[in-house]
Amino acid sequence: MTSLKFTVKQIASILGGTTEGNPNTIIHKITKIDAGEEGGLAFLIDKKFEPYIYTTVASAVIVKDSFVAEKELPCAIIRLENPQMGLIKLLQFYETLRPQKLGVAKSAHIAKTAKIGNGVYIGEGVVVGENVEIGDNSKIHPLCYLGDNVIIGEENILYAGVKIYENCVIGSNCILHSGAVIGADGFGFMPDENYVYEKIPQLGNVIIEDDVEIGANTCIDCSTFSSTIIRKGVKIDNLTQIAHNCEIGENTVIAACCGIAGSVKIGKNCILAGQVGIKDHTVLGDRVIAGSQTGIHRNVKKGDKVIGSPALSMEKGLKALGSIQFIPDLLHRVNELEKKQEK
Amino acid sequence: MTSLKFTVKQIASILGGTTEGNPNTIIHKITKIDAGEEGGLAFLIDKKFEPYIYTTVASAVIVKDSFVAEKELPCAIIRLENPQMGLIKLLQFYETLRPQKLGVAKSAHIAKTAKIGNGVYIGEGVVVGENVEIGDNSKIHPLCYLGDNVIIGEENILYAGVKIYENCVIGSNCILHSGAVIGADGFGFMPDENYVYEKIPQLGNVIIEDDVEIGANTCIDCSTFSSTIIRKGVKIDNLTQIAHNCEIGENTVIAACCGIAGSVKIGKNCILAGQVGIKDHTVLGDRVIAGSQTGIHRNVKKGDKVIGSPALSMEKGLKALGSIQFIPDLLHRVNELEKKQEK
Amino acid sequence: MTSLKFTVKQIASILGGTTEGNPNTIIHKITKIDAGEEGGLAFLIDKKFEPYIYTTVASAVIVKDSFVAEKELPCAIIRLENPQMGLIKLLQFYETLRPQKLGVAKSAHIAKTAKIGNGVYIGEGVVVGENVEIGDNSKIHPLCYLGDNVIIGEENILYAGVKIYENCVIGSNCILHSGAVIGADGFGFMPDENYVYEKIPQLGNVIIEDDVEIGANTCIDCSTFSSTIIRKGVKIDNLTQIAHNCEIGENTVIAACCGIAGSVKIGKNCILAGQVGIKDHTVLGDRVIAGSQTGIHRNVKKGDKVIGSPALSMEKGLKALGSIQFIPDLLHRVNELEKKQEK
Repeated sequence: MTSLKFTVKQIASILGGTTEGNPNTIIHKITKIDAGEEGGLAFLIDKKFEPYIYTTVASAVIVKDSFVAEKELPCAIIRLENPQMGLIKLLQFYETLRPQKLGVAKSAHIAKTAKIGNGVYIGEGVVVGENVEIGDNSKIHPLCYLGDNVIIGEENILYAGVKIYENCVIGSNCILHSGAVIGADGFGFMPDENYVYEKIPQLGNVIIEDDVEIGANTCIDCSTFSSTIIRKGVKIDNLTQIAHNCEIGENTVIAACCGIAGSVKIGKNCILAGQVGIKDHTVLGDRVIAGSQTGIHRNVKKGDKVIGSPALSMEKGLKALGSIQFIPDLLHRVNELEKKQEK
Repeated sequence: MTSLKFTVKQIASILGGTTEGNPNTIIHKITKIDAGEEGGLAFLIDKKFEPYIYTTVASAVIVKDSFVAEKELPCAIIRLENPQMGLIKLLQFYETLRPQKLGVAKSAHIAKTAKIGNGVYIGEGVVVGENVEIGDNSKIHPLCYLGDNVIIGEENILYAGVKIYENCVIGSNCILHSGAVIGADGFGFMPDENYVYEKIPQLGNVIIEDDVEIGANTCIDCSTFSSTIIRKGVKIDNLTQIAHNCEIGENTVIAACCGIAGSVKIGKNCILAGQVGIKDHTVLGDRVIAGSQTGIHRNVKKGDKVIGSPALSMEKGLKALGSIQFIPDLLHRVNELEKKQEK
Repeated sequence: MTSLKFTVKQIASILGGTTEGNPNTIIHKITKIDAGEEGGLAFLIDKKFEPYIYTTVASAVIVKDSFVAEKELPCAIIRLENPQMGLIKLLQFYETLRPQKLGVAKSAHIAKTAKIGNGVYIGEGVVVGENVEIGDNSKIHPLCYLGDNVIIGEENILYAGVKIYENCVIGSNCILHSGAVIGADGFGFMPDENYVYEKIPQLGNVIIEDDVEIGANTCIDCSTFSSTIIRKGVKIDNLTQIAHNCEIGENTVIAACCGIAGSVKIGKNCILAGQVGIKDHTVLGDRVIAGSQTGIHRNVKKGDKVIGSPALSMEKGLKALGSIQFIPDLLHRVNELEKKQEK
C-alpha cells in the first residue's frame, strides 16, 4: 500500500487519539502486531494478540483507551476508544491520498452520441456505445465496454475490463470490479418435441441502484422483458451468478461463488455466505441469513437463518449436518438392536 | 427493452390472435400482469395470476382462447391458443427489430492473413490473429480476442470481451457471452518426487459445434492433444467450468456455476442444474438429469435422474436428503431404545 | 495441435526409445489408440487399452519396454521405459516448436515510466500503467491490463484479457490465463446501526511468487493493508476465488470452482478438489487433501484428508456420506423397533 510518511503525532491527530512514547516516530505503513516491521503501525484489536505488544517490531501500536501496559513497551502507542474503527478510518484516510485518474484517453472509443459528465476518467481502450450517459466524476478504467444506451450515474468506479450490455442502468457511488458482466442474456430456452432448444430472446435490462459493489467476474443477467434489479447498498462478492429477473433487496450482502437462479426475490439486509445456491422463483424475506454452501429450494421467511442442502433452519441444520458423521454408527447400533430384539 | 409502438390489433396480427376491447390501444412494452403499467402488454400464462386481470394497469393482456371473463375487464385482450408461445414469438419479433451492428471498426486489429466473410461486424478494439477465419454475418463485439488459426462459422454472436485461444473452432449460429474463455490450458501437471508440479503442455483445442450458447465468464479448456468437444445445440449458462478433454453431447443444457472435471463425457439431451460437480473421467448417458449441487463421482446410466453429493437416484436422493434433518432425533431414539433394552 | 511432421525414427530419437516396424512412417499428430487416425501416434499407457493396438488406425504406438505383441501389429511401435513420461516429453517438445510472439504492438498503451525488459511480447491493445516493470522474455497477450506499479518478473505468460490491479507483484515463470483478475478489492464492509455497509478500503496487494499457474477467470483479491500471497509453485484452476489476506503455501494445487474466504492460510503441498469452500480465517496444515465440494469450517491438521460439508476426516466422511442414503430406512427400522419394544 501507499508508502506515505506520517509521524505518530500526525496519525493520532487524524484519528483523534492520544499518544505515549516518541510522537515524532515516522510511520510509513500499516502492519500486523505479530509480524511488525520498523516504521510500521500495528493495531491491537483482538485481546489475544496483547502479548505481542511487548515484543513487536512495529514502531507504534494503536490500543484501546483502557489498555494498561504490564511492562515497558518497545513502541509508541496511540490510545483510541475503538481501535477497529480507527483502522478503518485510517484506511479511508489513506484511500483519499491515492492518486486519482482523470481525463479521457485518446485511445478510448466514444460514440458521438454519448454524454460524458464533468470530472470523468475514461481509460485506454474503453468502448462507449451510442447514447451512453456517464455521470460526473465516474471513473471508467481501461478496456471497459459500455453498450448502447447504458446509463451510468455519478461517482462510480468501473475497474478494468467491466462489460455492460446495452440498455443497462447503473446508479451512483457504485463500484464494479474487473471482469464483471452486467446484462448478458438470461438463460431462457424452450425445448421442442425433439429436445432441441429454441432461444427465448432476453430483451430486458439490469438496473443497479446506488452504493452497490459488484465483485470481479460476477455476472448479472438481464431480465427477459423487464429488469433484473439490484437495490441500493447491495454488496456482491466475486464470481457470483445472478440470473434473469432477480431482485436483490437493499443492503443485502452476497459472498463469493453464489448461484442465484432466475426470478429469485431476495429481501433487504440479507446475508448469503459463500457458494450458496438458490432455486429459481424462490422468495427470501428480509434479514435472511444463509450459511455457506446452503441450497435453498423453498421460500425463506423474514428473519430466518438457514443452512444445509436442502436448507434447514440454522439451529436444526447445524445439528443435522453435524450428526451426519454418526450415521454409520447408527446403522450398526440399529442392527444390534434388531438382533437382540429378535432373540 | 425496445420502446417501439404497436397497436393491440397489430400485435394480434403478428401472433395470430383475436382481440376484444379497443384494438387501437397503443402498446409500447411488455409488462407483468400484477405490476402492469399503461401502454404495457401483459401475459396471463399462470392460472393463479387470473384475479389480477380485473385490476391490472396493463393496457392489454394476452389470454388463453378458453378464457372467460367473470367481470368487466379494464384492458383490451388478445386471445391465443398458447399465450406462453405467444410471448416467445413476440420477444422473437422484437428481437428482429433490434438495430444490427455492421462493418469493421478502424480500431480493430486484424491480421493480414485473416479471412473475413460478408456482413461481418467487428467492433472496436477487437484483436483477430493470424489465419483466423470469420464466416458470413458473424458479429464480433468490441474487445474480443481471437487467437491465431481460430475458425468461426456463420451467423455467430460473440459479445464484448470473449477470449478464444489459438486453434479453436466455433460452428455457426452460436452465441458466446461476455468474458467467456474458450481454449485455455487444461489443468494438467505431473508431480515430481518433491511434489513440485511440472506442467503437461496442453496442445489440443476446443471444438464448438453449431447452435451452441455459452454463458458469460464460462470457461472451456482445450484438450491435452486432441479436442474438447461441445456438440450441436448445447446450452451452457454463466460461470461454468468445462475442463480439458470433455465431450458434451447434443442438446445438453448446463446451468450456471457447474464444474465439469477433465475427460468427462456427457450424453445427449442431459440437464444439469446449478452448481453441479462431476468428477474427472465420469460418463453420463443420454437424457441424464442432475439436481442442483449434485456431486457425481460415478458413471450415470442413460435416462437416470440423480441428486445429492455423492449422487443418488433422484427418488432415493430426495428422500435421503430430506431425512438428514431427522438424524439428531434418530440418535436420541436409538439411545432410548438401547437404554430400555439393557434393562 | 501442431501439424508438424516427424518420422517414427525421429520421435524415437527425441524420446530415447527403440523402434519396430517402418521407422520412416510419417507422424503428424498425437492421437488416441482407440480413435486413431492415419499419421497419428498413440500411447499405450493404460493396460486395459492393450487390445486396441491390434486394430488401431494410428500409424505408430508408443508402448512399454516390456510389451509383448500377441499378434501381428498394424502399426509401427516405439518402446519406452515410461510411455506416460514419453507423452509429456513429446508434448513439451511440440510446445517448444510453437511459434513465439515477440515485440511490442503499436496499439499497446504503455506508460512512459514503465520499464520493459528484453525479449518481451506486448500484444495489441494491452494497457501498461505508470512505473510498471516487465521482466525479460515475459509475454503479455492482447487486451491485458497492468495497473500502476505492477511488477512482473521474467518468462511469464499472461494470456489475453488478464487484469492486474495496481501495486501487485508477479514472480517469474508464471502463467496467468485469460480473464484472471489479480488484486481486486477484498470484500470488506462494516455495517452501521441501520445495516448500511460502509466500505473498508482495501489498500494492500497480491504477491504471486515464481512458477505459479492461475486459471481462466480466477480471482485473487488484494489484502486489506498487507499482501495476499500465492507461494512458489502453486497451481490454481479456473473460476476459483481467493479472498483477501489469504496465503497459499508452496506447491499447493487448487482445482476449479473453489471458494477460499478471507485470511485463510493453506500450507504446502495441499490438494483441493473442485468446488471446495473454506471459511474465513481457517488454517490448513501442509499436505492436506480435500475432496470435491468439501466445506471446511475448522482448521485442518498437517497431512489430514477431509471430505464432506462440514468436513470430516476422509475415511469417516466417505462412510458417512455413503450412508446418507440409508437414513429413510433407519427411520423405518427405528419406528419398528419402538413399536415392538412398546408391546
